[in-house]
Amino acid sequence: MKIGVGISNRHIHLTSEDYKLLFGDIPFTKRNDLNQPGMFASDLTVTLMGPKRSISNVRVLGPLRSYTQVEISKTDCYTLGIDALVRNSGDLSDAEEIMIVGPMGTITRNAAIIAARHIHVDERIREKYGLKGIEKVSVKILGEKSGIIDNVYLKDSDEAYFELHLDTDDGNAFLLKQNDEVEIIFR
Amino acid sequence: MKIGVGISNRHIHLTSEDYKLLFGDIPFTKRNDLNQPGMFASDLTVTLMGPKRSISNVRVLGPLRSYTQVEISKTDCYTLGIDALVRNSGDLSDAEEIMIVGPMGTITRNAAIIAARHIHVDERIREKYGLKGIEKVSVKILGEKSGIIDNVYLKDSDEAYFELHLDTDDGNAFLLKQNDEVEIIFR
Repeated sequence: MKIGVGISNRHIHLTSEDYKLLFGDIPFTKRNDLNQPGMFASDLTVTLMGPKRSISNVRVLGPLRSYTQVEISKTDCYTLGIDALVRNSGDLSDAEEIMIVGPMGTITRNAAIIAARHIHVDERIREKYGLKGIEKVSVKILGEKSGIIDNVYLKDSDEAYFELHLDTDDGNAFLLKQNDEVEIIFR
Repeated sequence: MKIGVGISNRHIHLTSEDYKLLFGDIPFTKRNDLNQPGMFASDLTVTLMGPKRSISNVRVLGPLRSYTQVEISKTDCYTLGIDALVRNSGDLSDAEEIMIVGPMGTITRNAAIIAARHIHVDERIREKYGLKGIEKVSVKILGEKSGIIDNVYLKDSDEAYFELHLDTDDGNAFLLKQNDEVEIIFR
């Protein structure tokens, strides 16, 4: 079955406590909605500082969460000089330490992960597409740099927009752009 | 069959004419040999300038060639603000224009490509591994971000070191490191 692609550039989710430490009283304003219902890109960015180099203009996504999480690619890891592990969002076990710099303060958190390839689903979508009880799938990608990616986890929420989320390494390796269509396969 | 991985970071091959324009009389000295017989990384680097941003410390490989060719990743294309096509080395048809800056001069060439995934072979290797007459293969990659990459071209030379060459996008998408082992498959 076909599914649309969303390429996730590096970004950060913040707790309200960490938001205050980084941004003080600066209001948390929305720049644009994302495809997932309720999610948005804010007007704000932070700088990530690793032991090797820093990366600026890292977008803060909303709404605020119960955990602070930095989602980066393997390429970003080499830039920063850290070795983040592949994790599903919300699983910060052994997450890498990273320094996060905002206009009003700096914090250091064990919060950096490479987000696992995932597809957003909800109960209605699982039912509609025959995905009930399935933990992960593979995805077939066409084009000049074609291939198959495995370990694409189904990520449940109450109300989801059916979309495949890849980081920029996967997106660029397969020459994928936002909203390209790929195919879910089982293997 | 198993094969070792070589990750190719962005680099440049130069003609002797372009070398002179960029480096003048600076000697073309070897930093280290590469796995392919005769090939080496020089002590020299250039800066690539695109319409959007520049990338410095781009290694000049040797020996000098009959064509100037800049091999970059899709990620580099976004950084530079250019849209290079996937090409086998030496095929510069519709190669992207790029400005190349050295210590003694600047040149602009239609020379930027994304190198196609390829495996270095020679006649002895083709015979030994049953690859005679084959144009391209696929490669199976294990690990947390496992999968399959297609359109891996066999690239012939007189004397080759049997190795899979991937750019940093492919390498990082699949969490591969230099000398990791992967498997050639036919599909």
